[in-house]
Amino acid sequence: MSTLRTHSVVDDLCPSRSALEVIGSKWTLIIVPLLSKGDMRNGELMRRIEGISQKMLTQTLRELERNGLVERADLESIPPHVVYALTAAGRALSEALEPLDAWVIKHRDKLVAAREHFDAQ
Amino acid sequence: MSTLRTHSVVDDLCPSRSALEVIGSKWTLIIVPLLSKGDMRNGELMRRIEGISQKMLTQTLRELERNGLVERADLESIPPHVVYALTAAGRALSEALEPLDAWVIKHRDKLVAAREHFDAQ
Repeated sequence: MSTLRTHSVVDDLCPSRSALEVIGSKWTLIIVPLLSKGDMRNGELMRRIEGISQKMLTQTLRELERNGLVERADLESIPPHVVYALTAAGRALSEALEPLDAWVIKHRDKLVAAREHFDAQ
Repeated sequence: MSTLRTHSVVDDLCPSRSALEVIGSKWTLIIVPLLSKGDMRNGELMRRIEGISQKMLTQTLRELERNGLVERADLESIPPHVVYALTAAGRALSEALEPLDAWVIKHRDKLVAAREHFDAQ
């Protein structure tokens, strides 16, 4: 890496870019706000997120854990009981996503209409 | 669609979910804030975003245009001069991304350290 690193997302080697790889996933944008409501087990996440496969959920949770955004707590009980919880960085991410969530709620119908208009042309 | 639609991102058929498909792309998260600084031509975007291919830039701009977030203005000059600009919805998205950008700047080094720690185990 160069000492002239710009530390900007437009820069390929910047750590910001790799953070965007994690955030720039619709499953991250769904799972992080969901976990902000409380710790959840795998089964509960599967039930609450329509259309996610077990493989994709496992992959996304592992990537979030790998990046220090989610903690996996194994209660070492019988039967096994593993819960997923946001870390402090994950909670901060969830808060930073709130304006985006408000934007989605305000603009989603416009986006659908724009797509329909575009596709009809 | 059911009249009981929950309008929540956890719901597969919700328009919010499809909005997340657009936002949940690292290239969207890079291009939208970049265009908030001013209209840009394709060549300028290519130069400023390290590591993007022409194919991926074209695809992302088209998807942003399709969703009504970016406008493509063809100035119909000779030589041809096409610029990309945010729409009002795109500018609102750019503003909603600001806290996320601040989160990235604050946490990116922690994410890198967490990944290195995780991968070393």
